[in-house]
Amino acid sequence: MRKLFQEDLQNLGEQLIDIATLVSQAMQKAYRSFETADVQLAEEVIAADQRIDALQNDLDERAIDLLALQGPVASDLRTIVGALRMSTSLERMGDLARHIGQLVRLRYPDHVSPEHLKPVYARMAQHAQDLAEKVVRLLQTRDLALVDEITAENEAINALHASVFRLIAEDEWDASPATTADCTLASRYFERFGDHGVSVSKKVAYLVTGEWDVKAHAE
Amino acid sequence: MRKLFQEDLQNLGEQLIDIATLVSQAMQKAYRSFETADVQLAEEVIAADQRIDALQNDLDERAIDLLALQGPVASDLRTIVGALRMSTSLERMGDLARHIGQLVRLRYPDHVSPEHLKPVYARMAQHAQDLAEKVVRLLQTRDLALVDEITAENEAINALHASVFRLIAEDEWDASPATTADCTLASRYFERFGDHGVSVSKKVAYLVTGEWDVKAHAE
Repeated sequence: MRKLFQEDLQNLGEQLIDIATLVSQAMQKAYRSFETADVQLAEEVIAADQRIDALQNDLDERAIDLLALQGPVASDLRTIVGALRMSTSLERMGDLARHIGQLVRLRYPDHVSPEHLKPVYARMAQHAQDLAEKVVRLLQTRDLALVDEITAENEAINALHASVFRLIAEDEWDASPATTADCTLASRYFERFGDHGVSVSKKVAYLVTGEWDVKAHAE
Repeated sequence: MRKLFQEDLQNLGEQLIDIATLVSQAMQKAYRSFETADVQLAEEVIAADQRIDALQNDLDERAIDLLALQGPVASDLRTIVGALRMSTSLERMGDLARHIGQLVRLRYPDHVSPEHLKPVYARMAQHAQDLAEKVVRLLQTRDLALVDEITAENEAINALHASVFRLIAEDEWDASPATTADCTLASRYFERFGDHGVSVSKKVAYLVTGEWDVKAHAE
């Protein structure tokens, strides 16, 4: 019974890794579709988000069942509550990758971003992809050094997000209002994606250290 | 002991109502500051969000303690897990009201929105305020008729959110790119506020009916 419970906990952790891996792939595909206005790839990202939602829902149900059947305490309880919290953040990261795909689909065959802004998105997306891969590795290894790296990736995304607004406010900005709105939203989606990644990393730290960070919820 | 536990559960519910009430007040103040470019009111909203964050953190800690100490099952477990989920959504709603206040502060003494777009935000904000008040009443009364009303308020917000983008794309749109970006974000904040309100209402329905809605997570 006890042994089975530990297997159940391990399965929860593995399902979190599966979801985080899908999220990481979703962000990679979402950016490729954004970069090249590849509507087929965008459609793939949009369709694949249903799988993330279903896995999150399944994980949540299993976590609640474990709470009901096992009445866990201490670190086992933290693991299950942490899994519930992390799955919510990971599901949101999947939504944000989907939102980028939806922007690409909305503007196809046009590109969402003007050419001169694409290098900023390229850097933002690279940090978002690195952040997502580090979240997967953090869930796999519990190596808390990755928490600071994930925070640094997010800060880089935030700085690029701010630079998008500076570029939009410059006299040289000549994109249409609709494109300006799209660029604002796209930048916001990358920025939120990073915030949720930090939120997941803080929750892993909570599981390892037992100390809950007040700021651990997604900003 | 049992009686004390029921009191603890009731206290969790009352704390959710307290948080939802603060969120409702935050959205009212945030919109008034937005409408009149009242930077003092915006500062109040920004400062008050710390109280919401602290209450959410306190509620989460107490919910986790109850899980640890009581090993609740069935409806008691649903109540506690539901409180954890709802507090997260309510905290995000508070953040979004704060974000509106931060836009007001950023642009002060200018107004965030051009005059001709203000009637759209006025309607959006009215639906957002009505939605927030209905979330409070739903938490107080568990009257599930309010769930459909909250969904309807959110659909009205979504329609207005879409209309903002149509207006931005019209030839008549003559606002600066920076204002276009601000209006895009402000509209997005109202739209997300509504989504989280629906998410809370679905969770209340889950507590009352015991049926978890796959779509209950914030979109």
